[in-house]
Amino acid sequence: MGKEVNFGKLLHGGDYNPEQWLDYPEILEQDLAYFKKARINEVSLGMFSWAFLEPEEGVFRLEWLKEVIDRLYENEIVVMLSTPTAARPRWMAEKYPEVLRVNAARERNLYGERHNHCYTSPVYREKTRIINTKLAEMFKDHPGVIAWHISNEYGGECHCPLCQEAFRGWVKKKYGTLERLNRVWNTGFWSHTYQSFDQVESPSPKGDFSLHGLNLDWKRFVTDQTADFVKWEIKALRDAGAEQPSTINMMYNFTGLNYYKFADVIDFVSWDNYPTWHKEAETVTAMDTGMQHDIMRSIQKKPFYLMESCPSATNWQSVSKLKKPGMLQAASLQAVAHGSDSVLYFQMRQSRGASEKFHGAVIDHYGGSDTRVFREVTKVGAALEKLQEVNGSQNPAEAAVIYDVENRWAVEDAAGPRNAGVFYKETVEKPYQAFRKLGINVDVIDETCSLDGYRVVAAPMVYLLREGWTEKVRNFVKNGGIFLLTYWSGIVDETDLCYLGGTPHDLMDVMGFRSMEIDGLYDGEWNEGIPEPENPLHLERAYRCSHLCELVQPSTAEVLMTYGKDFYDGMPAMTRNVYGKGKAYAVCADFEQGLYDEVCRKLAEEAGVERIVEEVPEGVEVTMREQKDGTRYVFVQNFSREAVEVKLPIERYPVWQGTYDGTIGSWKTIVLKGR
Amino acid sequence: MGKEVNFGKLLHGGDYNPEQWLDYPEILEQDLAYFKKARINEVSLGMFSWAFLEPEEGVFRLEWLKEVIDRLYENEIVVMLSTPTAARPRWMAEKYPEVLRVNAARERNLYGERHNHCYTSPVYREKTRIINTKLAEMFKDHPGVIAWHISNEYGGECHCPLCQEAFRGWVKKKYGTLERLNRVWNTGFWSHTYQSFDQVESPSPKGDFSLHGLNLDWKRFVTDQTADFVKWEIKALRDAGAEQPSTINMMYNFTGLNYYKFADVIDFVSWDNYPTWHKEAETVTAMDTGMQHDIMRSIQKKPFYLMESCPSATNWQSVSKLKKPGMLQAASLQAVAHGSDSVLYFQMRQSRGASEKFHGAVIDHYGGSDTRVFREVTKVGAALEKLQEVNGSQNPAEAAVIYDVENRWAVEDAAGPRNAGVFYKETVEKPYQAFRKLGINVDVIDETCSLDGYRVVAAPMVYLLREGWTEKVRNFVKNGGIFLLTYWSGIVDETDLCYLGGTPHDLMDVMGFRSMEIDGLYDGEWNEGIPEPENPLHLERAYRCSHLCELVQPSTAEVLMTYGKDFYDGMPAMTRNVYGKGKAYAVCADFEQGLYDEVCRKLAEEAGVERIVEEVPEGVEVTMREQKDGTRYVFVQNFSREAVEVKLPIERYPVWQGTYDGTIGSWKTIVLKGR
Amino acid sequence: MGKEVNFGKLLHGGDYNPEQWLDYPEILEQDLAYFKKARINEVSLGMFSWAFLEPEEGVFRLEWLKEVIDRLYENEIVVMLSTPTAARPRWMAEKYPEVLRVNAARERNLYGERHNHCYTSPVYREKTRIINTKLAEMFKDHPGVIAWHISNEYGGECHCPLCQEAFRGWVKKKYGTLERLNRVWNTGFWSHTYQSFDQVESPSPKGDFSLHGLNLDWKRFVTDQTADFVKWEIKALRDAGAEQPSTINMMYNFTGLNYYKFADVIDFVSWDNYPTWHKEAETVTAMDTGMQHDIMRSIQKKPFYLMESCPSATNWQSVSKLKKPGMLQAASLQAVAHGSDSVLYFQMRQSRGASEKFHGAVIDHYGGSDTRVFREVTKVGAALEKLQEVNGSQNPAEAAVIYDVENRWAVEDAAGPRNAGVFYKETVEKPYQAFRKLGINVDVIDETCSLDGYRVVAAPMVYLLREGWTEKVRNFVKNGGIFLLTYWSGIVDETDLCYLGGTPHDLMDVMGFRSMEIDGLYDGEWNEGIPEPENPLHLERAYRCSHLCELVQPSTAEVLMTYGKDFYDGMPAMTRNVYGKGKAYAVCADFEQGLYDEVCRKLAEEAGVERIVEEVPEGVEVTMREQKDGTRYVFVQNFSREAVEVKLPIERYPVWQGTYDGTIGSWKTIVLKGR
Repeated sequence: MGKEVNFGKLLHGGDYNPEQWLDYPEILEQDLAYFKKARINEVSLGMFSWAFLEPEEGVFRLEWLKEVIDRLYENEIVVMLSTPTAARPRWMAEKYPEVLRVNAARERNLYGERHNHCYTSPVYREKTRIINTKLAEMFKDHPGVIAWHISNEYGGECHCPLCQEAFRGWVKKKYGTLERLNRVWNTGFWSHTYQSFDQVESPSPKGDFSLHGLNLDWKRFVTDQTADFVKWEIKALRDAGAEQPSTINMMYNFTGLNYYKFADVIDFVSWDNYPTWHKEAETVTAMDTGMQHDIMRSIQKKPFYLMESCPSATNWQSVSKLKKPGMLQAASLQAVAHGSDSVLYFQMRQSRGASEKFHGAVIDHYGGSDTRVFREVTKVGAALEKLQEVNGSQNPAEAAVIYDVENRWAVEDAAGPRNAGVFYKETVEKPYQAFRKLGINVDVIDETCSLDGYRVVAAPMVYLLREGWTEKVRNFVKNGGIFLLTYWSGIVDETDLCYLGGTPHDLMDVMGFRSMEIDGLYDGEWNEGIPEPENPLHLERAYRCSHLCELVQPSTAEVLMTYGKDFYDGMPAMTRNVYGKGKAYAVCADFEQGLYDEVCRKLAEEAGVERIVEEVPEGVEVTMREQKDGTRYVFVQNFSREAVEVKLPIERYPVWQGTYDGTIGSWKTIVLKGR
Repeated sequence: MGKEVNFGKLLHGGDYNPEQWLDYPEILEQDLAYFKKARINEVSLGMFSWAFLEPEEGVFRLEWLKEVIDRLYENEIVVMLSTPTAARPRWMAEKYPEVLRVNAARERNLYGERHNHCYTSPVYREKTRIINTKLAEMFKDHPGVIAWHISNEYGGECHCPLCQEAFRGWVKKKYGTLERLNRVWNTGFWSHTYQSFDQVESPSPKGDFSLHGLNLDWKRFVTDQTADFVKWEIKALRDAGAEQPSTINMMYNFTGLNYYKFADVIDFVSWDNYPTWHKEAETVTAMDTGMQHDIMRSIQKKPFYLMESCPSATNWQSVSKLKKPGMLQAASLQAVAHGSDSVLYFQMRQSRGASEKFHGAVIDHYGGSDTRVFREVTKVGAALEKLQEVNGSQNPAEAAVIYDVENRWAVEDAAGPRNAGVFYKETVEKPYQAFRKLGINVDVIDETCSLDGYRVVAAPMVYLLREGWTEKVRNFVKNGGIFLLTYWSGIVDETDLCYLGGTPHDLMDVMGFRSMEIDGLYDGEWNEGIPEPENPLHLERAYRCSHLCELVQPSTAEVLMTYGKDFYDGMPAMTRNVYGKGKAYAVCADFEQGLYDEVCRKLAEEAGVERIVEEVPEGVEVTMREQKDGTRYVFVQNFSREAVEVKLPIERYPVWQGTYDGTIGSWKTIVLKGR
Repeated sequence: MGKEVNFGKLLHGGDYNPEQWLDYPEILEQDLAYFKKARINEVSLGMFSWAFLEPEEGVFRLEWLKEVIDRLYENEIVVMLSTPTAARPRWMAEKYPEVLRVNAARERNLYGERHNHCYTSPVYREKTRIINTKLAEMFKDHPGVIAWHISNEYGGECHCPLCQEAFRGWVKKKYGTLERLNRVWNTGFWSHTYQSFDQVESPSPKGDFSLHGLNLDWKRFVTDQTADFVKWEIKALRDAGAEQPSTINMMYNFTGLNYYKFADVIDFVSWDNYPTWHKEAETVTAMDTGMQHDIMRSIQKKPFYLMESCPSATNWQSVSKLKKPGMLQAASLQAVAHGSDSVLYFQMRQSRGASEKFHGAVIDHYGGSDTRVFREVTKVGAALEKLQEVNGSQNPAEAAVIYDVENRWAVEDAAGPRNAGVFYKETVEKPYQAFRKLGINVDVIDETCSLDGYRVVAAPMVYLLREGWTEKVRNFVKNGGIFLLTYWSGIVDETDLCYLGGTPHDLMDVMGFRSMEIDGLYDGEWNEGIPEPENPLHLERAYRCSHLCELVQPSTAEVLMTYGKDFYDGMPAMTRNVYGKGKAYAVCADFEQGLYDEVCRKLAEEAGVERIVEEVPEGVEVTMREQKDGTRYVFVQNFSREAVEVKLPIERYPVWQGTYDGTIGSWKTIVLKGR
């Protein structure tokens, strides 16, 4: 999980592009004064500076960067220094076209935009090695450079001949023999048998696109090849003697890479958070954003860094809505509550031209500090200064929800019970939100993660079983864990081959039933779950379900609810099975949130999960961080548009930050502190 | 129309892929037991087996197939044996890229998916000849192989240089001289004159796409070239001595090919039927499916074969909805009612991986026979056994509706009165459904078919007049036929050149009017037809029309209805013309179904069409098959969700199958038998 | 603005393609008789005749064309003769593929469709020169040829290597040095620095597409290169001695070219007008069409020519709706009212085949003159004969609205406050329509046009400031002009670089405020403007606004309205600033039409704009043309579906055409005449 990272303070700052302003020294000087005013203590540099650092092949100009960093450091502003690989100089693409990506239709890009390079290209790797080495040599000992920010928002894929060759090698290494390859990808279907590894090609709209095993392995390869490139970047820095910790900045709900596989590659996780506040109710957006924070924290189970966020409106979403007063602070402190040790922005100063010129910034084109946004940023800076001791604390969790990117890839490519949408993310969100509404910390982990230490685990739509997961589940339940599984689980193995002999594979005994069929419902169709009389969970009301209804045949499971309609009227819609010391619950259909709210509350109680705030009103988030010495910081945030009453345990956890008189104001944050 | 085909029994079975299970002999053995249990008497083999039959170029492995066929035959299960051309082995694409298709943008595909081969390629034809020869040599005398299933679901087109050359030859042969080509394609428009046949290119989004004559001839060429390939496939079988009858499996509402042109190419018609039962009301789906069955039967005017259908849910539609109990049987018997001598499924056993792994099957991944679907299939098998004597009987029809694929191509490419939709299929459906609601058999024929033997013929939107059709219409009416034509008819000749001098071309005397203008209505706009006082058809109520309103100037025609609005208020909306011994009716606008229901009922009466069941309740289908000896089987099926009362003529036609007490249950089938 | 053009009469006629009918001499002869009957005095020839004029390379056949022109001239029908470059012969594409366009993805087209040629290709230019020379040589002195119609509906772009090279030259000429290029395109962003002009490439979905400065200059280049080609075409004619005036036919709301830049290239403006009458209320369509007429007239500030319009229904819109009786005349006279000296149609005779065979025509496939459409056309001919003296008169205007195509390019590519739509065209329409509802002439001018002579000028969303515009505005207001600016103005310079130091740039003193932020609203969101008590414009009611709300900080401006909601409740929503002798108003948000109606009425009054008809009822258009001698023709047209009462100033301007009894009939035109 990388080394321990702690910069000694909560960071406040963000991306800064002085290379665009080198002709305006007065502006750069002015910026320093503004940074102080806004309590900025960090900036991120160099992300897109390659053309300035190496204006011609082999000609390096790093002095301007050093001057900027020196000047910042004199002003007590530290730097996360980026490797510049997210956008290469034009001369490189002109001289070495192989550095440009080839799309799935096998067409090579022209130079343009960013994130347009081949991760496999030896030329690109060598050029990367050289520039990273230069940067490392110059800044490895600079006290102002605290971390390496590797490239920017990795993503995308390349289908060039070099990547094809690398993919063939990857496949051969993984499967060894053609016989095995043909078996696991089930190539007998449609006579797709490989006669040679040389025939392996990445998926393409012009070739194969529905050989699911191929699709899945291609996605895995893209993650592995990207990780390999990240390692290559970091190795160049390390080889040159730079030891500052490294990170990559991840993205919201991004499925192009399996971020969990980077846990061992980088030293700390960071991410870029751009919620569309005020589009939906802020309580909805906060819940969604909270889950992403929790994913980021769960990857390494330690504090992460909010690397980018927008102080005002973005310019690339459909509507560039201004953040209303107070929203920036609420959003920023939510990150800290969920485990971030920073609040960083894109961007410190707006660029004058090109595609992001209207993206919100701490300092805008007008150029004054007498702006509403500047004042909002300054308030965040002030708040962070008061919260400094939170830095480095953990977010211990007794509840976990399974969210697995490889499973998601398979689910979304399944051609299964509902091509019009199976709503994987939404299905994960339902138990997540149900738990969060109780004010408890929730880890969002994938199937490779340990279940040790959790009291309750929800596993929504675990369609693809990764090696060893069912064994962990079995032990978890056997030893007293409370487990919740949904429909459409345990269907395929890691190669997307369907299990024979009944599903959920290897869990039929734990769950106490076998799944027989799954029905797809059209949009607008619904069924309902009717509670069984005197069911052990004391469910008393009916809930609606839609999209998918699984029909199961119980063996040892008790039926908690039955369907209320259609030909499967009366068949189980929810079950419970006692297994070992624990219990395994199943939700058989895509039920509305209400069912999850009721069930997860009862499961958390049954599991004995600790709840700090007994009754959490709607729209309020309770999140807890804990220092090594046992000190706890309880963040209570109200994301609703009205003040709400809430009873806080101020005897044990007195109010530390914010004001509390029995209510909490709209978009306000209270922090309690205690043990 | 091919030779007479009769396998001596109604077939029950479907597609089976033992090549995917060769490593699991116990599964293959188990399958045989299951087949018996489900009363399976046929399976279709070999459809995608090329990589197993010829794993390397020139190396053939047919023994496994023979073993499977032998074993099946020992168990009284016959085989339709497929040629494997729908998916070629990878080695072939690797060695001979010319076998891969080129799309309209002139880009060659990579190997992938299926149906991805050039029909023109000499290499592909030679490889096809060789494998088909091998299959024929081995199975020509095998008593278990009853038919040849040629490739699978032919479709798609190839724009490679070889196909371009073939198209140029086709065009040159058809038109002979450049002068004629330029005239019929009206190339003077936009200076598109051809100076040489070498300039002829298939339509392309990068080149010509709105030269309608070219578009139309290209589609004809694609049909002809596909038919030529089918002939090539069959010739290889015949040359090797295989004499079993041949078929291709056709598709629902498929317009990529003109299936009517295959009537003389194959020995019997078969098709793959995948209705989305339970998406709309079952009565709606049944009517739609019924028309497709009737198209398939009308192509050769003899029994067809249901080659594929799904025992449960498909996996490629937007929602994979389970078939509710009883639906499979109702749908299966509907096929038989409309003239099918089989009920076959895709698929017997689900594949473990790749794109159709979740497609419904008789035997699913669980692998037991104790499933709901297996039981439903078994019931169908039992029902078919009772109906065996129906096998080989005809569906005589006194009513016909014109549905012409070449006309449809032209209509849908017309750039005419309504690019937002002229609804050709829906316009054909209206008189079809009106007739079917009377419980009478309806043939769905194209313009090349004879009108002999029909009493009433509806001709909706016959925009393009094929050679000789108006002559047939003239004679039909002259000799006493009842004829119904709609708006937007008789507009262009076979090359899509507009007729000069008035429309409907060559029918203005028969219809007794000239069409002057046609008005397009926006979605939501409507007009109405008001009955003329004392009109001879005794129409008394008004009906709404939308989309298209034609303005006609009567010569000899009587006006039955007039428009009720707009500047053509009072102009004819429906007319009748007495011509010879017959009558020619015209519907001038896109009227609602109600008008067709009333008008077609009156026309059928006027024509003296025999009706077996006097009053057919809504949702009930009555279909009649007749053996050579005059025995009639009257299928009465209730597709509504409630039992309905219906008075059946059980004196003449006693109940043979099913139970009848004055009502017929939901999704139930009653078969009467008599003479 | 080209030379003065006056053909001595209002023209009535249109596009005619006799080359499609050369084999039918009787049809061509019949056409002449029909033309006379319909009072046709002009036809446009040769537009797509290249294959007939040069059937083989270097072989010319112009005799047929001369015969047609002679015969027409004998019948007093003059000709606008087209150069044939909009569609080249097949032999040319076959021999010289470089004449075919390359799309932005760098794929070369096949031969096909029309408008598919490279404007840069030396071959195409040479072939154009030769054919134009031949035409000029033959027809330069022909009295029947009154004008040159250069090609057809120029549009589209080519990305071929020749065009890339030309674009590089254009960029180098414009910016001189790499340093300047890198500065104005702000290439420092994302490290896009150019190291050489050879690296400049047109925008591409496969390369750069969000470097706004590049995008903008590419569009400018396309306009310049097209204009250069037009000049080349005209030069060939002139070099061969042809002196007849030249035109290009422009299109509705076309943004592919900046038409204002053609003012000095061609002798007169013409355009092709295809409104979707009867889709929306005719009053809405009339207002929309009127603005396009006014744009066309404003380009050269003199009469334009309606080059194409449809006598009936088009065949390429979504619904081909017939023009209802009277609509053709109303639409035709609207063109004349707004400054057209012609009413011309596409097309005189329908083609028999190919993509426009169903496009409405004076003579249709039926081929008689006894059709409704022919009679409607004849009525227009009669009306024009009565209006002959209007020919050549001007449309003097005291009000102007700024509509700038370069600004529009920048706005629509901005990636700014609302990517879901900023509605530039609609924003221009609001003050335009408000002025037009007062019955006053309105010029629609771009930022390069002079403001001299106007009393009131509205400037909606002038995001991009073109060189010198603010100076003109400053002087206009200083000298007493009434000026209206909206939100999102004065943001970037001509290279799309954001102004620093506050916006609206260079107008903060004139407007009396600085813009601080702009808020994007989601669809369905709204705010409102509440009038300030006793505001000087006497606004008394609230109006709703949506999409965009700008927050401004007044310096000298008075606040007229304030926002009614959100966190900017109470901040200015509309302001006024007295500057010099004039006044500068600002609308800060996207308000509903009603606000513009009230405000523009008050501004016109304040400015002392002359209004001929005091109260113009809804749906009525009042437009005035004026001869050099001061004679005025006041066109009053009722586009509503009912007759309306209107009080006309018949004392000063007696009724000249049409009937007036205090009301004006639906779709009727009255023309008053006076001084």
